[in-house]
Amino acid sequence: MAQKPLDILNGALNSPVLVKLKGGREFRGELQGYDVHMNLVLAKAEELKDGTEAKKMGTVIVRGDNVVYISP
Amino acid sequence: MAQKPLDILNGALNSPVLVKLKGGREFRGELQGYDVHMNLVLAKAEELKDGTEAKKMGTVIVRGDNVVYISP
Amino acid sequence: MAQKPLDILNGALNSPVLVKLKGGREFRGELQGYDVHMNLVLAKAEELKDGTEAKKMGTVIVRGDNVVYISP
Amino acid sequence: MAQKPLDILNGALNSPVLVKLKGGREFRGELQGYDVHMNLVLAKAEELKDGTEAKKMGTVIVRGDNVVYISP
Amino acid sequence: MAQKPLDILNGALNSPVLVKLKGGREFRGELQGYDVHMNLVLAKAEELKDGTEAKKMGTVIVRGDNVVYISP
Amino acid sequence: MAQKPLDILNGALNSPVLVKLKGGREFRGELQGYDVHMNLVLAKAEELKDGTEAKKMGTVIVRGDNVVYISP
Amino acid sequence: MAQKPLDILNGALNSPVLVKLKGGREFRGELQGYDVHMNLVLAKAEELKDGTEAKKMGTVIVRGDNVVYISP
Repeated sequence: MAQKPLDILNGALNSPVLVKLKGGREFRGELQGYDVHMNLVLAKAEELKDGTEAKKMGTVIVRGDNVVYISP
Repeated sequence: MAQKPLDILNGALNSPVLVKLKGGREFRGELQGYDVHMNLVLAKAEELKDGTEAKKMGTVIVRGDNVVYISP
Repeated sequence: MAQKPLDILNGALNSPVLVKLKGGREFRGELQGYDVHMNLVLAKAEELKDGTEAKKMGTVIVRGDNVVYISP
Repeated sequence: MAQKPLDILNGALNSPVLVKLKGGREFRGELQGYDVHMNLVLAKAEELKDGTEAKKMGTVIVRGDNVVYISP
Repeated sequence: MAQKPLDILNGALNSPVLVKLKGGREFRGELQGYDVHMNLVLAKAEELKDGTEAKKMGTVIVRGDNVVYISP
Repeated sequence: MAQKPLDILNGALNSPVLVKLKGGREFRGELQGYDVHMNLVLAKAEELKDGTEAKKMGTVIVRGDNVVYISP
Repeated sequence: MAQKPLDILNGALNSPVLVKLKGGREFRGELQGYDVHMNLVLAKAEELKDGTEAKKMGTVIVRGDNVVYISP
């Protein structure tokens, strides 16, 4: 049976996710919310450079149109 | 008779697909879900570099606007 | 009398088409389906480089927003 | 009195038009159809390079979002 | 009192306008029509290079998403 | 209490604003109108280069999708 | 329980936020308003260069499609 992408996002709530953005930016954080545009709320977010932690950001609201993929 | 692109996607559920993204990124994985925006859920996803496996990713939710083509 | 672009696409079903994508990518294949976004299903698709065949792809679902033009 | 752009397109049906696309591509052909997205059908289309004929294409369906301008 | 941008366009009908497009292209012509997408019809259009006349184009239908600004 | 961005624009009517566009273009002028797309009408507009006045433009209709920010 | 991204924005009203835009531009300011497009109103806004303050801007209305992320 097919699983809707937003259902998978819903199942990842309160869990750590990796978010890859257009332009190469990458965040790791705890998924606290999302909406139909794939706008995301990440808590305890860290921006990564080359796969290693670059900057602790606290809470981050990512605008969905920047998202390439999300990996729970 | 015409086949709608989303019907073909539906027929590819639970099967391996190759997904080419804008900017050259490429994934191989098992198609577990999709929606009308061509947002995709891939399980056992691998990101490919030059056609060879680069990184095992587990489950990946791809935002549809990044997709160039999907090959079941 | 005007012909709607999608009617022309409909008339090309099950026939070979050339599809030019943004970024220079080019496919040749048999048009098996389409929808209002110009998402396309190509069977026996071949990706072309410099007008010559580069890679046999089987079935390919092209997301419509990548399309520059389609030539039946 | 104002003329709607699509009315002008309608008046150009079955006449030769020049179509300039984003990225510098240019077509000349007979306008056989269009829709509200400015998707176009050109018959006897020729792709131009530097204003001179480069390639005879037959019928071409241009996706409207590539269009910069159309000159009847 | 606020004036809607399309009302200003309407007031410029049959008058000369300067139209700046994304990518640096620039037209001067008589505004003969427009629609809600800012698709434009220019009559006696001239394409400008560096502010000087480069090419007489006759009637030109500009797709609105290319427009940066219009100056009546 | 939250203020809607368009309400702030409304409060800036008939006052000078600075408008920054994608691609680095910058206008200063009197805000005479706007709509929900952030299409703007500027009167007595001046295009700025490096923060200094470059060209007097009179009235300018800016298509909203070019806007980065507006500062009243 | 999931938190909608716009609810988080609402909770940040009248508080300082960091806003990262496409193209590398960055603002710090007090969030005074927003709408469903993530158009933002920032008061006492400062544009940052390399994480340090570059220019005091007063009130700024940011068009939402430029936003990469917002950090309350």
